[in-house]
Amino acid sequence: MYSTITYTENTQKQYLYLEVYHRYRELILSDQLLPGTKMPSIRKCAQEWKLSRTTIENAYLQLAADGYVISKAQSGYYVTDIAEKQKKETGSSHLSKPVYRYDFASSGADKESFRFDLWRRYIKSALRQDERLLSYGEAQGELDLREALSSYIRERRNILCSPDNIVIGAGVQSLLQILCPLLSERKTVSFPTPSFIQGSTIFSDFGFDIQYRNKNSEVIYVSPAHMTKWGEIMPVKRRLELIHHASSQNSLIIEDDFENDFVYLQKPTPSLFSLAGGENVVYIGSFSRLLLPSIRLSFMILPPSLLEIYKKKANFYNQTASKAEQIALCQFIRDGHLASQTRKIKRLYSQKLKQLQKSVREVFGENSYIRTGAAGTSLALTLPFSGSSKSLQKKAEKHGLSLSFLEETEQETTVILSCSSMPVQDFLPALHLLHYLCTH
Amino acid sequence: MYSTITYTENTQKQYLYLEVYHRYRELILSDQLLPGTKMPSIRKCAQEWKLSRTTIENAYLQLAADGYVISKAQSGYYVTDIAEKQKKETGSSHLSKPVYRYDFASSGADKESFRFDLWRRYIKSALRQDERLLSYGEAQGELDLREALSSYIRERRNILCSPDNIVIGAGVQSLLQILCPLLSERKTVSFPTPSFIQGSTIFSDFGFDIQYRNKNSEVIYVSPAHMTKWGEIMPVKRRLELIHHASSQNSLIIEDDFENDFVYLQKPTPSLFSLAGGENVVYIGSFSRLLLPSIRLSFMILPPSLLEIYKKKANFYNQTASKAEQIALCQFIRDGHLASQTRKIKRLYSQKLKQLQKSVREVFGENSYIRTGAAGTSLALTLPFSGSSKSLQKKAEKHGLSLSFLEETEQETTVILSCSSMPVQDFLPALHLLHYLCTH
Repeated sequence: MYSTITYTENTQKQYLYLEVYHRYRELILSDQLLPGTKMPSIRKCAQEWKLSRTTIENAYLQLAADGYVISKAQSGYYVTDIAEKQKKETGSSHLSKPVYRYDFASSGADKESFRFDLWRRYIKSALRQDERLLSYGEAQGELDLREALSSYIRERRNILCSPDNIVIGAGVQSLLQILCPLLSERKTVSFPTPSFIQGSTIFSDFGFDIQYRNKNSEVIYVSPAHMTKWGEIMPVKRRLELIHHASSQNSLIIEDDFENDFVYLQKPTPSLFSLAGGENVVYIGSFSRLLLPSIRLSFMILPPSLLEIYKKKANFYNQTASKAEQIALCQFIRDGHLASQTRKIKRLYSQKLKQLQKSVREVFGENSYIRTGAAGTSLALTLPFSGSSKSLQKKAEKHGLSLSFLEETEQETTVILSCSSMPVQDFLPALHLLHYLCTH
Repeated sequence: MYSTITYTENTQKQYLYLEVYHRYRELILSDQLLPGTKMPSIRKCAQEWKLSRTTIENAYLQLAADGYVISKAQSGYYVTDIAEKQKKETGSSHLSKPVYRYDFASSGADKESFRFDLWRRYIKSALRQDERLLSYGEAQGELDLREALSSYIRERRNILCSPDNIVIGAGVQSLLQILCPLLSERKTVSFPTPSFIQGSTIFSDFGFDIQYRNKNSEVIYVSPAHMTKWGEIMPVKRRLELIHHASSQNSLIIEDDFENDFVYLQKPTPSLFSLAGGENVVYIGSFSRLLLPSIRLSFMILPPSLLEIYKKKANFYNQTASKAEQIALCQFIRDGHLASQTRKIKRLYSQKLKQLQKSVREVFGENSYIRTGAAGTSLALTLPFSGSSKSLQKKAEKHGLSLSFLEETEQETTVILSCSSMPVQDFLPALHLLHYLCTH
């Protein structure tokens, strides 16, 4: 049944039933045949069209298969209400997402954080490279971008790697989908940083046993610059311990350098990859937080042992990241804009986070329990709210306030407040609303 | 060891060794410390920096780990030649890909096939939607694009589906990486269309047993508009048989509608999805061939049973496709450009393919054995060449001719000639070169 034949005039006959099909479909969709109408009998229709009964029957069967008509035993075919349904469907499929007046749960970017005009210029110039866009991209990612990343990452993160070790993909998950099959011997993974649920999805898709805090897992997935939701970072001492531990039991570390560009310290935080000398660590970097969440560009640096396995399969994967965006980012980095963007982001969000903290003290009192880290755009605030977090969430949503909950005890509820996309002038009104909801 | 502490002044001490590390790293990279130079002893260095020996030792260990120095037993640390290597690496990593004068193996697009100016305008307008680009995209793909696709696919492919059934991704592989884990009960897949090797990679990554032509596999992956490399399409009769067969043994069909827009017939070729009434078929569509290979946008339509499973997991996946490109494509479709692009592509490539066939007859004689289908951009030509295809390929490459081989016997070799990206005026010179190589 899988044999194929070359198209010839003979097979044209097979398409005749489709003419009948299309004609009736049109009549139904344009309401010229209304729901409930009985279709002409096959015999009658065959006479009308001067076609064989089989052809008509095929057309009717097809109409039935597509839901335009329904067959009633011993009676014939009847038009369904599909036309109406279709109209409704396209009309109403805009599922109304709740719109929030104040969004403390957002991971979007601040309007001021990104120079759209600049990025537009780079994309525009990338789209002028007609010749380059006419072909498929390199499986591993565009070479010039990998070169630019290799220099950038050496400068910023002290990581020595050749462009050959870098694999580009549309987001961290795309990279993990390539990485997981390379780790065929390893079957357990731990997430000492519990926040990256998207990462664990891919591991679980590939049959890994997810052990959130098991020290002896064969893969350790960690975000040293985002150890908690309120931005704690992993101290260098712990980094060295982790590397030592991993190497002693031959575990692979996956270092997701998420939000490292949001670490508000003067001193650099060394990457696990460089601390470990590039062995047994996969480094993952991403631009969603640094540039725009809507730009899907991430990269991973493979250690030599994995690179060897990857190389054999590399050409079996198509690149997922947009070629135009890769070309644009490459030039953007070369021109030094990524470095200045990093400085800008740091300044902007560290100021916003400080301001948020100040506003929280103003509204909830000097002694309110706030946890902050050395990085990120969020703080943890423990509220004197004894109801369930679910009831608070419901109340908040009703008032147009979006919250993200961390934990609750009988007396208290802890929320994570992100200043990421909220304008500074909204802090006080949003916090006053939150305070009101906690006390009323 | 996974406990985390908030950053405090105390941990600053831990960064001291990094100052030492960075200073020496700089000296080494700037050639102020040349390869082979002995590093100062730890004792001496500690005195100089007024730091503890442990701190200096940590710095040296780190330098060694990163490859800047090497420790020699009973002697001390010596600078390596890493600085030189690094310079070379960034300089020479442009692996020279062979450049072909005539490329019969290319799957790139014809320069004339795409209106870059138009696409640039749509991308530019998409990039003006600042607010929208500041947030992460919808996991399933932008709703307005899914709506536009749902109408488009109803119009073009006679497929009735709600935007809710459509999942968008950056390329077919990204979609399969979401689809495969949904098929947990199924473990065997067959590829009656043997050409999509990238598809089988994903299935094999997910532990499927790949059985190229086993009729009884639980998943059947098929491209009805691209049954052979020379563009044969699956006749409607076979389509119906396949659906019947699959349904009788409860197999899932994955219909990759690759190159259906390159079918040069007057009559439409019904999709398996619509023929089967939307049950037990996953439909996959892509825009790489229709627009540009560098645009990474594909979509799949899930049947109700799979949609239910997908919905539970949908939010655990991040969208892989560029949001800007999604927004642009949506408006592009709404304005009718996709429909006119399809007409343009059909006209262009059917003419090119005819011309290629004519040129082949001109060069290789009226009786040369050519196979063509009803779709695509390639034909199969059997050459009177008795040597091995490898030897012909080598000769061809030397002469700047890229070929793709299909099969060989003792007397003959069959090549696939693609007119995809080659300009028409190159057909004759390229074919004359091929003829020369076969006979000399």
